[in-house]
Amino acid sequence: MPKIVDHDERRLELVDATWRIIARLGIEGATMREIALEAGFANGALKPYFPTKDTLLEFAFGHVFNRTNQRVAKVTEGKTGLPALRAFCLEVLPLDEERVNEARIVIPFWQKAVNDPQKAEIHQQSMEEWLAAIRQYLAEAREAGDVRAAVDDATLASQLLNMLLGAQIGAALTTRPDADPGLTDQLEGYLALLAG
Amino acid sequence: MPKIVDHDERRLELVDATWRIIARLGIEGATMREIALEAGFANGALKPYFPTKDTLLEFAFGHVFNRTNQRVAKVTEGKTGLPALRAFCLEVLPLDEERVNEARIVIPFWQKAVNDPQKAEIHQQSMEEWLAAIRQYLAEAREAGDVRAAVDDATLASQLLNMLLGAQIGAALTTRPDADPGLTDQLEGYLALLAG
Repeated sequence: MPKIVDHDERRLELVDATWRIIARLGIEGATMREIALEAGFANGALKPYFPTKDTLLEFAFGHVFNRTNQRVAKVTEGKTGLPALRAFCLEVLPLDEERVNEARIVIPFWQKAVNDPQKAEIHQQSMEEWLAAIRQYLAEAREAGDVRAAVDDATLASQLLNMLLGAQIGAALTTRPDADPGLTDQLEGYLALLAG
Repeated sequence: MPKIVDHDERRLELVDATWRIIARLGIEGATMREIALEAGFANGALKPYFPTKDTLLEFAFGHVFNRTNQRVAKVTEGKTGLPALRAFCLEVLPLDEERVNEARIVIPFWQKAVNDPQKAEIHQQSMEEWLAAIRQYLAEAREAGDVRAAVDDATLASQLLNMLLGAQIGAALTTRPDADPGLTDQLEGYLALLAG
């Protein structure tokens, strides 16, 4: 009987190995050879899963995005309006090591996307999903009287998204990992501004 | 008489060539050979100015930062408080092609800085300078009654800086260069939130 291989499982193992390597060596040091070594694969054995480093990076970014969204779905379950918005933001902000590592994956992806329309499109679609979610939370929060700011929701959603993206940069680039960058204060402060 | 060469001038020529190449080919395509070619230098002639691509990238980032600050100094001249804050933000936001190109330089720099503490430190120091400037504008704006939000200035400054950084990503990665991302609306909306 042929050995049964769970290909999705192996893809995820490779993604995990990829971001351990990227976190350690940076994206340029993350060669297919290093990733194979880290994942315990023979050198050529990656090709059937990911023919190029680019396809691997796209898959890894998609995985980070999906994983964040799974966590978001969990923490926002049964919530609407301001509580849902707060839970969403707290999940996207790089507040623990796992999410700082995700930021360290996302920045190389952005850098690739600067010159790669396909990756830029993946980024753009992901951000449109998030903007739509934020706008819905804002509309619900307005209805509940928790948002009274005289600024339209589309503008607020874009502000907040940019704030969340900017926070990824600070977290991924910090030279003082023990210093608190005050991200929860920033979020609470922003929600206070929205309350008016 | 030996030929007089203005070394600072030549360094800036190389930086200009570098970001034309990065904008066109991405940072990985921006080899020292391509940059030399673009700047009209013989291949080996770059070495006395920048021994490695890394030193060139650090210089280029420093140059973008200084150039932005020169523009900021110009547009904020004679201004304080809210008008100075608005002028500062409008200058940092990627609102024209020059500044979108700068964003396309800054993202590769960030990506490098994720695994390079020296570059991360350059980023951090630059951002601390900007945070200090924003805090001063906010304090002046508060004194003038233009900021009444019940959130401390340090938190507001960090929010605003993250928003400005997040905007760089959207601009550098857009697949719809003609679509207005509404950055001035975001800024005006945020200043309206601060007014309370």
